[in-house]
Amino acid sequence: MAKTFTTEHTIQYYEADVKQHVTLPMLINISLEASTQQAASLHIGEEEVHSRGLGWIILESSLDIHEMPRVHDTVTVKTWVEEANSFFSIRHFQVIKDDDVMVEIKMLFALLDMVSRKLTRIPDDFIEVLEPKAVKRVKRLANNDMWAEGDDWDHVTEYAVRYNDIDTNLHVNNSHYYEWTTDALGVDFLANHRPVSMVVRFEHEIGVRDTVVSRYQKDELVTKHQICTGDTVGAQANIVWQKETDVPSFKM
Amino acid sequence: MAKTFTTEHTIQYYEADVKQHVTLPMLINISLEASTQQAASLHIGEEEVHSRGLGWIILESSLDIHEMPRVHDTVTVKTWVEEANSFFSIRHFQVIKDDDVMVEIKMLFALLDMVSRKLTRIPDDFIEVLEPKAVKRVKRLANNDMWAEGDDWDHVTEYAVRYNDIDTNLHVNNSHYYEWTTDALGVDFLANHRPVSMVVRFEHEIGVRDTVVSRYQKDELVTKHQICTGDTVGAQANIVWQKETDVPSFKM
Repeated sequence: MAKTFTTEHTIQYYEADVKQHVTLPMLINISLEASTQQAASLHIGEEEVHSRGLGWIILESSLDIHEMPRVHDTVTVKTWVEEANSFFSIRHFQVIKDDDVMVEIKMLFALLDMVSRKLTRIPDDFIEVLEPKAVKRVKRLANNDMWAEGDDWDHVTEYAVRYNDIDTNLHVNNSHYYEWTTDALGVDFLANHRPVSMVVRFEHEIGVRDTVVSRYQKDELVTKHQICTGDTVGAQANIVWQKETDVPSFKM
Repeated sequence: MAKTFTTEHTIQYYEADVKQHVTLPMLINISLEASTQQAASLHIGEEEVHSRGLGWIILESSLDIHEMPRVHDTVTVKTWVEEANSFFSIRHFQVIKDDDVMVEIKMLFALLDMVSRKLTRIPDDFIEVLEPKAVKRVKRLANNDMWAEGDDWDHVTEYAVRYNDIDTNLHVNNSHYYEWTTDALGVDFLANHRPVSMVVRFEHEIGVRDTVVSRYQKDELVTKHQICTGDTVGAQANIVWQKETDVPSFKM
């Protein structure tokens, strides 16, 4: 059984949307904060990773959202590395309230050599302390046929990368991809639907002066997304939605 | 002496910029969270205000930034309402670390009737529990001559309001004005400068489907800003900057 870390977080007013639910980017931030804390507690934190010229990257994420935490909810975030081989690891997160698992997240991590920008072998001591199941092959989180195909885009929206989108790793913080994909769907769709599951595959880093294009295809309650910079696909996403019953009325 | 409220906050990784400093919008969010908590502790919180058909609005803010809190800093946020009359109040905030006041913020608040959208008298019981100095006249935080004049704009940037910019009050969260003003200055300026003082005057609410234009004039280390929707000025700001010595190198 992998080493589990738990921490608590109270959803702040400024982390919530108009429905008083935590926003998707903040849900990701809060979850990743728990993994940062676990790594620090095991002396394999950011500073140690950076000092070896390495950096973690996320290749894929999958989310199952049973219920979104709300403003003032104090949630427990539980995280552990479920399985790993020499190059890949899968980290699990659970966001829990009163023993109910509200959100389950899996992320496929790999380690980057910061100079060559290539994937590199994970040092044994990084893995050993996390006590994951050693596996020969780490499977992808999503099937390739989940991704968007073709040029039949319903809508294209541009987002200029903002200065504050860049984090201490000097590239766009992972959480912004969640905003670019969903925001493109527009207020009416977002106010009337809630995401129940989402898979994201990250293909290319996005930098500080990039403008990204967010485009989507919609088929009833399934949306497929691409985030591109020029001709390069930065990320693909697939989201399953549910109709929302409790819809806010906006001031226009 | 007004009733003082203190709370603690640890700056999270995702609340910080590339220099590991808390971002300006997050500094505002964290500060306002303390006032929300104080109001709730005195039973004049959001729910009470909303149940009477009222909503607080901020007319002006002024910030003095001696030093920006950094990632993992645990800061104390102290807040109190310094003075008030029947229509206006001035709330002070101090962000403190190890007895040093890092940031001082003042905000001029008024109360809106949510139906008529007009300023309304502050109920006596809202003020009494906060124990501010009763004053005949509440002064503006900034002189009118601080604001930008004329059409001599160095640069104009458009920002579409995003779904997640809208908060549980159903309009754009105050903190986003700080991002729209500063972000327009561009990566090179922001990486090489830090804000030391800032005054913002809010003129008009911004709604969910608006596109804002952020434009600025620059005179050495002073920048003057306007946030507009169409011909309407939503906010004006005046920022004094200092050259930064510790500048990050970006991946381009």
